[in-house]
Amino acid sequence: MAKLSLSLLSFLVLLGCGYAIREQQGECQVSNIDAREPSYTVRSEGGQTEFWDNHNNEFRCAGVSIRRHIIQQRGLLLPVYHNAPVLVYVVQGRGTYGVLTSGCAETFESGQQQQFSREERSQRFRVDKHQKVEEFQKGDVIAIRAGDAHWVYNDGDQELVVVVFHHNSNYANQLDQNPRSFFLAGNPGSEQEEEQYRRLRGSQEAQSELGNVFSGLDEELLAEAFNVDVETARKLRGQNDGRGHIIRAEKSIQLIQPHRSRQEQERQHNGLEETFCSARVKENLDRASRADFYNPRAGRFSSLNSFNLPILSFLQLSAARGVLHRNAIFSPHWYTNAHTLIYATRGASRVQIVNHRGQAVFDGQLREGQVLVVPQNFAVVKQAAEQGFEWVAFNTNENAAINTLSGRTSAIRGLPVDVVANAYQVSREEAQKIKFSRQETLIFNAPHSA
Amino acid sequence: MAKLSLSLLSFLVLLGCGYAIREQQGECQVSNIDAREPSYTVRSEGGQTEFWDNHNNEFRCAGVSIRRHIIQQRGLLLPVYHNAPVLVYVVQGRGTYGVLTSGCAETFESGQQQQFSREERSQRFRVDKHQKVEEFQKGDVIAIRAGDAHWVYNDGDQELVVVVFHHNSNYANQLDQNPRSFFLAGNPGSEQEEEQYRRLRGSQEAQSELGNVFSGLDEELLAEAFNVDVETARKLRGQNDGRGHIIRAEKSIQLIQPHRSRQEQERQHNGLEETFCSARVKENLDRASRADFYNPRAGRFSSLNSFNLPILSFLQLSAARGVLHRNAIFSPHWYTNAHTLIYATRGASRVQIVNHRGQAVFDGQLREGQVLVVPQNFAVVKQAAEQGFEWVAFNTNENAAINTLSGRTSAIRGLPVDVVANAYQVSREEAQKIKFSRQETLIFNAPHSA
Amino acid sequence: MAKLSLSLLSFLVLLGCGYAIREQQGECQVSNIDAREPSYTVRSEGGQTEFWDNHNNEFRCAGVSIRRHIIQQRGLLLPVYHNAPVLVYVVQGRGTYGVLTSGCAETFESGQQQQFSREERSQRFRVDKHQKVEEFQKGDVIAIRAGDAHWVYNDGDQELVVVVFHHNSNYANQLDQNPRSFFLAGNPGSEQEEEQYRRLRGSQEAQSELGNVFSGLDEELLAEAFNVDVETARKLRGQNDGRGHIIRAEKSIQLIQPHRSRQEQERQHNGLEETFCSARVKENLDRASRADFYNPRAGRFSSLNSFNLPILSFLQLSAARGVLHRNAIFSPHWYTNAHTLIYATRGASRVQIVNHRGQAVFDGQLREGQVLVVPQNFAVVKQAAEQGFEWVAFNTNENAAINTLSGRTSAIRGLPVDVVANAYQVSREEAQKIKFSRQETLIFNAPHSA
Repeated sequence: MAKLSLSLLSFLVLLGCGYAIREQQGECQVSNIDAREPSYTVRSEGGQTEFWDNHNNEFRCAGVSIRRHIIQQRGLLLPVYHNAPVLVYVVQGRGTYGVLTSGCAETFESGQQQQFSREERSQRFRVDKHQKVEEFQKGDVIAIRAGDAHWVYNDGDQELVVVVFHHNSNYANQLDQNPRSFFLAGNPGSEQEEEQYRRLRGSQEAQSELGNVFSGLDEELLAEAFNVDVETARKLRGQNDGRGHIIRAEKSIQLIQPHRSRQEQERQHNGLEETFCSARVKENLDRASRADFYNPRAGRFSSLNSFNLPILSFLQLSAARGVLHRNAIFSPHWYTNAHTLIYATRGASRVQIVNHRGQAVFDGQLREGQVLVVPQNFAVVKQAAEQGFEWVAFNTNENAAINTLSGRTSAIRGLPVDVVANAYQVSREEAQKIKFSRQETLIFNAPHSA
Repeated sequence: MAKLSLSLLSFLVLLGCGYAIREQQGECQVSNIDAREPSYTVRSEGGQTEFWDNHNNEFRCAGVSIRRHIIQQRGLLLPVYHNAPVLVYVVQGRGTYGVLTSGCAETFESGQQQQFSREERSQRFRVDKHQKVEEFQKGDVIAIRAGDAHWVYNDGDQELVVVVFHHNSNYANQLDQNPRSFFLAGNPGSEQEEEQYRRLRGSQEAQSELGNVFSGLDEELLAEAFNVDVETARKLRGQNDGRGHIIRAEKSIQLIQPHRSRQEQERQHNGLEETFCSARVKENLDRASRADFYNPRAGRFSSLNSFNLPILSFLQLSAARGVLHRNAIFSPHWYTNAHTLIYATRGASRVQIVNHRGQAVFDGQLREGQVLVVPQNFAVVKQAAEQGFEWVAFNTNENAAINTLSGRTSAIRGLPVDVVANAYQVSREEAQKIKFSRQETLIFNAPHSA
Repeated sequence: MAKLSLSLLSFLVLLGCGYAIREQQGECQVSNIDAREPSYTVRSEGGQTEFWDNHNNEFRCAGVSIRRHIIQQRGLLLPVYHNAPVLVYVVQGRGTYGVLTSGCAETFESGQQQQFSREERSQRFRVDKHQKVEEFQKGDVIAIRAGDAHWVYNDGDQELVVVVFHHNSNYANQLDQNPRSFFLAGNPGSEQEEEQYRRLRGSQEAQSELGNVFSGLDEELLAEAFNVDVETARKLRGQNDGRGHIIRAEKSIQLIQPHRSRQEQERQHNGLEETFCSARVKENLDRASRADFYNPRAGRFSSLNSFNLPILSFLQLSAARGVLHRNAIFSPHWYTNAHTLIYATRGASRVQIVNHRGQAVFDGQLREGQVLVVPQNFAVVKQAAEQGFEWVAFNTNENAAINTLSGRTSAIRGLPVDVVANAYQVSREEAQKIKFSRQETLIFNAPHSA
């Protein structure tokens, strides 16, 4: 028995403590990064969610996680809030969403306003007031603060696909770095999901990170808090609800919504919005005309930061959208102040990522639907494959600063030519070529590969 | 022997490493929260201090700790500074305190000002100058920055009881999360206290977190630094001082103090104070007239944040005071951006706390003198017992944002009625009742329970 | 075998897990601090770098590290960026440096500006443009943001000695607390260095924290990115470069540089610089005329903070320079909001450091070339030895606040005399001496020791 428990012990020590010690010496001792696919899927009545495993080294180092919702027509993602700020990118489709902000008024009202009380049970159906709702479409980025509840409804004519980036190590999350999703309805985190999660984690103790907060509250107390009967209160708790976290709207969903013209929707906003209640939280990054860097032969790059979407200064996050044509190169670069999570939206690219020891911790293909984390300061270069490459990037700084290694405005160009000549042991003529041969800034076409 | 050390080993691994690993995977994997009482008491000549054990899960998750001083008449809490900002709430009694702020002048002077030098030994007794001192009373909250030394004197006519909330995971604390108290006099942390502490921790290596910094300095060096004789310098070190950290003032304490009228003391201040030297650090939260939410049948709620006490924006903390009448309900809610520590000042309440999995991590009574920690984002509801309930809450954000689940301005009210109907599988009529039946905002009376 | 692996196991548990557990209970449970010398040296063609071991308790607690570069005449520290903001202090010599800031233009241009393209291979030698370069000299402090690449060239007539302070636990570093140096050229982190590092760490897995990021990038891809031939691209990767991280400039280095008068160089700047591109990052702390505290018989003290070097508010760091004459005393004090790393530049001093338990965690000599870390809130006192003492201090707050225990503006002076009398059990007369005998503020001469 001693021997048995000994080997068990060894196992615990080697896996368990060894792990603890290594982690403490450096959570970012990343010697290998992978292009990641989702690890498990949670299916619901109205769609499904694919989760990336956030226990991988590079995810833990960056303190980030990501999931992808696929919401069918008439699917409704139940109201939920997270312990971290999130950025949503709309990969496909269109829909409507609402963010419920603490203390903000219900500013969307139907024509006839009425006082409702327990006694007035015969009010008309369509009378309602609620907080602002907004339409969104492919290419939109939506920024949501930690703890702000939100819901999403697919009222479009195709499947809606969104990726949700969580910045768990953000200052706004005072819990630990595990992503947590607090639902306000339904019965997420049911047995089926638990089972999948336990299998992934290889542990009977692993638990999923979804649930309906009402389910832990007493139904009598809820009845009093809502001033409804216990039968109704019970429905808030969703205990026998087998629909999951994305439901199908059996009853038609009609929203109070101003019908804005296309122009209005694309209008550029500027300046700091006055309060969180009226703050703009959405911007479309897909339009080519919005590009910050543009090279007709090579591609384009658009960034979204606290200067063009002010709420990002509160979230301390930013995003970017890139398009590389066939074989085009995105200049080797590093971010001085941010981790980056890249989600590939189309095509494929060769990517190399290098750490401070000069080791390539990633050298491979990144393909549509995959995710790659680039830690802060690590050098990275991309070259699009034959079919070209498109991606969205999420950065853990409201104004992520990029430093390129080649091209105009690059670090190497900032060096005196004599420093270049000595550093690389080249002639001054070669040094000048290294500095000045590449005239473009960020995105290069590659005649050699073409 | 192998077997012996094996079991010892198993013990170490299971308790020790298991602990380390669990912690690392999530310091806030809180599956159970308790209403806590103090764990040990340190007795002194002039009073006693009761410490809550900050190694409990929910305290560690929130990075907070709390202690309660009971200071007898003429008791003086010796000057002390902490490694974290603290908020003090005065539960009972009145007294005088001073905060010693780096670089601020001694602005309280007795009539006759004199130059003192080593040679002028015959100066008059009552000539003095010192930094600002201020009176305080029951219901006051006092905000003290990390590292600012302060002292408290009970010159009232009854026992003084204050609770002190430490935010150890605050940005201002660059040490680890253990609360530390650096005294400038006396001999705190004596053997008696060590003994109690070791017993609590079950370890011979545990050490208390109090001490007089002078005791570690050489007395000859102190004599030179203060330009006094070695005999006097020795007294700074307090080595044979058996009085503890709260002493009884044997010599009468007379302070230079402007005698303000009652009106002046209650005057509301506005705007940002000009420097830290003159910043206001105190406000009374007990007066009913100060309530931010008021319901004559159910109770009231007052909050203290960076808008009404500007120094809190530096401390990144806020506080609130709640009163619930018999059976009244405090709306189910969550804080988007803060942990909360609740200290019950009177009566009792049923409280439920729910995590993101929908599990009730606490469902029980919170009674006068007990403490309950509610982690950020966790949902919580309170219903006062027959005798009513009063409390003070400390929040780890200078402007803690509350989101209610029922009542006016609640998250559920912000949802379109059709979303409510679909989410909870209820008719539109029921959905409207869920949204609109409860008209109050935060504090509800409960006719059903009455 | 069971016994063998058992003892191995015990070893692992005691060293490994015990370590993990202790760390978690408090990374700043510092019971002993040492005056530290460098742990290992990395030699290069043009100089050498001495590293302090940042795994010591007090370095880990403070989240800091330090290294010393000794750069020979014509030595060039290759362009490098770090994962943390750094402060550089110039101990000896003079030189030129450049900081490559993302997105800033090459504002230093030679007279004849030309367009260079791949086809124009016959351009004149001396035509160049690069980012701002600046001279520096003994006594200068230079502030560099995390991720900003920089280089240093010794064009003076003696060895150049600089110490570089890294604040690894700074908010700007989103990687873990290990210092990382990303070089843009050469072949740092070669076998020789690895070997030394492994010996120090006692582990075959330990790896140095230096490397050339180009070495991990594919040379074909680099050739395309730089639009140069593969031969040249290969030189960027520096694979057979045996010169190390400080090279000797074989080719003369001529820089475009305005020749400013001495006066201009010493001109005091004020106010916030407009952008990071033109921000001032350097200031000389050695001139006696700059002192903030000055006592002709005892010494002087100059501080550099966000008020006089605005970029420090972004770095959240500050620095100070102290000079104590023979036997002079620096008042016992604590910093309310910062750790301090002291580097002794000349002479020696007795230093005592006291923790919150009143224990002297250091009581010894600090000598020229040694380093001492004083954790936040710990009390410290210095008395210069016979030969006097000079030092530079780096603080982990942009406006480190000092609280003295004796002297004018001290905490003790802020206490009412009756509080002093009761706290220290002295007569009011003695209390007045304790408060008022020492008239100086920060630096005292010590007639008794003289």
